[in-house]
Amino acid sequence: MNRRAFATDLAAGLGAATLAGAAMAQTAQPQPRIMGGAITDVPGIKVGHFTETRRPTGCTVILTEEGAVAGVDVRGAAPGTRETDLLNPSNMVQQVHAILLSGGSAFGLEAATGVVRWLEEKGIGFPAGPARVPIVPAAILFDLTVGDHRIRPDAAAGYAACQAATDQAPGEGSIGAGTGATVGKLFGVARAMKGGIGTASLKVGAITVGAIVAVNAVGDVIDPSTGQVVAGARDVEGRNPIGTTTAILRGELPASMQAGMATTLGVVATDAMLTKAQCQRLAGSAHDGLARTIDPIHTMSDGDTIFTLATGKSGKSGNMMALGAIVPHVMAAAVLRAVRAAKAIGPSPPGASELG
Amino acid sequence: MNRRAFATDLAAGLGAATLAGAAMAQTAQPQPRIMGGAITDVPGIKVGHFTETRRPTGCTVILTEEGAVAGVDVRGAAPGTRETDLLNPSNMVQQVHAILLSGGSAFGLEAATGVVRWLEEKGIGFPAGPARVPIVPAAILFDLTVGDHRIRPDAAAGYAACQAATDQAPGEGSIGAGTGATVGKLFGVARAMKGGIGTASLKVGAITVGAIVAVNAVGDVIDPSTGQVVAGARDVEGRNPIGTTTAILRGELPASMQAGMATTLGVVATDAMLTKAQCQRLAGSAHDGLARTIDPIHTMSDGDTIFTLATGKSGKSGNMMALGAIVPHVMAAAVLRAVRAAKAIGPSPPGASELG
Repeated sequence: MNRRAFATDLAAGLGAATLAGAAMAQTAQPQPRIMGGAITDVPGIKVGHFTETRRPTGCTVILTEEGAVAGVDVRGAAPGTRETDLLNPSNMVQQVHAILLSGGSAFGLEAATGVVRWLEEKGIGFPAGPARVPIVPAAILFDLTVGDHRIRPDAAAGYAACQAATDQAPGEGSIGAGTGATVGKLFGVARAMKGGIGTASLKVGAITVGAIVAVNAVGDVIDPSTGQVVAGARDVEGRNPIGTTTAILRGELPASMQAGMATTLGVVATDAMLTKAQCQRLAGSAHDGLARTIDPIHTMSDGDTIFTLATGKSGKSGNMMALGAIVPHVMAAAVLRAVRAAKAIGPSPPGASELG
Repeated sequence: MNRRAFATDLAAGLGAATLAGAAMAQTAQPQPRIMGGAITDVPGIKVGHFTETRRPTGCTVILTEEGAVAGVDVRGAAPGTRETDLLNPSNMVQQVHAILLSGGSAFGLEAATGVVRWLEEKGIGFPAGPARVPIVPAAILFDLTVGDHRIRPDAAAGYAACQAATDQAPGEGSIGAGTGATVGKLFGVARAMKGGIGTASLKVGAITVGAIVAVNAVGDVIDPSTGQVVAGARDVEGRNPIGTTTAILRGELPASMQAGMATTLGVVATDAMLTKAQCQRLAGSAHDGLARTIDPIHTMSDGDTIFTLATGKSGKSGNMMALGAIVPHVMAAAVLRAVRAAKAIGPSPPGASELG
């Protein structure tokens, strides 16, 4: 079964799973488990990666060439962003044409220039007098510790990501904005594990919800269905995850960290018809998906930022109660896929599948 | 061991647990489990409940008679609040004298009048010309569905809560602001379970962190160490929790809900010396504790609001990285204690300990 079909059938599949579980009526139902799908299952969404080969960094563009209503919620304490103020529901512009997620710390914001250039060449943008101005909100993550920090995504990288964009399920793991991502950094990068980028989707009734996330956290990644660490800070021998918060509580001292040493970046997309304010709220809901899968999250060294895109292509208004319940689970699934797919690149730390 | 001693020893206890677990090195360490303590373990904090006997409602005051730096984060979509704007870090007043959490929906904000009166009689307040003006931020939850909705916490209720306030561990479950609380309401109150109020604390080094929370959510309460539902929406026979988000995904239609039909309210307190901005950030961190234990959370019908109080009585600056990691776990522990202690009152739904 391909990923798109899996996503489409998942709602029905969950129903079947529940019926099959009727015999174990004394056990409370577990939380929904979302295993597949991609943000490109949402009509109107394309994704393209640029992966730098000289050192682990890169960027990922989420294209909405026909425009999409958008929102953002910045919850980490060390963000690096561009064009987020216009997403305030009280501000004028209603639609964006792309979201860029990039490595390279604040330098990586330059990659948005390449996305703007590519869109301008296509004649895509907000009509403003003689010009069409592409609206490209962007956010960056910190990945300057491995290799030559002077190499970071630039305008050419953003342009290349647009050229690579398709409506097919994007690659996951150590690719695009996830190329240089790591997790479990509170006790130093030497004890960290590889982060990456992941995606997931779910169709409920007529509405599709997808997410993509570049997981590059101070914290550990936790599977919320078991409470176990999937990838995170390892013991001093570099063998096993220690549980970062547990280690703090027994008095292990964090490594010296500076603001912006981490940051998890995500996009939620749906084909529901939503307002900017509704998009903003769903971005907040998606942060709850980060809270359930990353611990600690939203720290002083994470600039965690999530955007929402609503393409409206279903022609249906979204049920905000249902969307608000589902979005965190889709985001959580994307987080788990990101670290499960991540592989070491050169001197970077090992991925979850490479440990032990 | 009394609760205060338990809290004090917990950090050491976690260390011992970790050493004991060294033999199972192939297993990632679970998340920290915080089982005891109370917000009153934080020096400078008193708590008092008022519990209405005519129908299930009430209020809870968290007193800081010597003043505490405070912050707030309102993350639900249907809040009811008072004096939250002055907590903006750019605004003038630096300290508050109490936080009030109340049932009674917007009517319950009146209970803050009683808290102000009690403080004024004690000569406690912000010096303003000839007067001392007590600063009492407050937030309310919706509990008007059981009994005569015209009965709700009023000024006398707030005053009585102050009279009852002590530095002893407060009661938990169906008491104070948790008296009328319920959870798992997405498919109607008839299938809900009892919510309540809970508290927890943790001492890490010289710093104590405590939390209190009145859990009154649209969503289910989940144990994040297992992913299982502790209390939430039940099947149509009223026997077992069904998993609200799982039910949404298989197409169960939510009951007709109105804005403000729920709301979880909490306070985090610490004896660290913090700024208003730091308090605001920790309030946000505490919402991540709600995200890990309540699903869905921050919905269109929840006005979820969390305050932070920093009494400064430790004389130590807080390490924001460590506090940001710990606060969600203390809040999560308080949420679980709230629903585990909750008992049915009259016609209200059953508590977690009363099911099956």
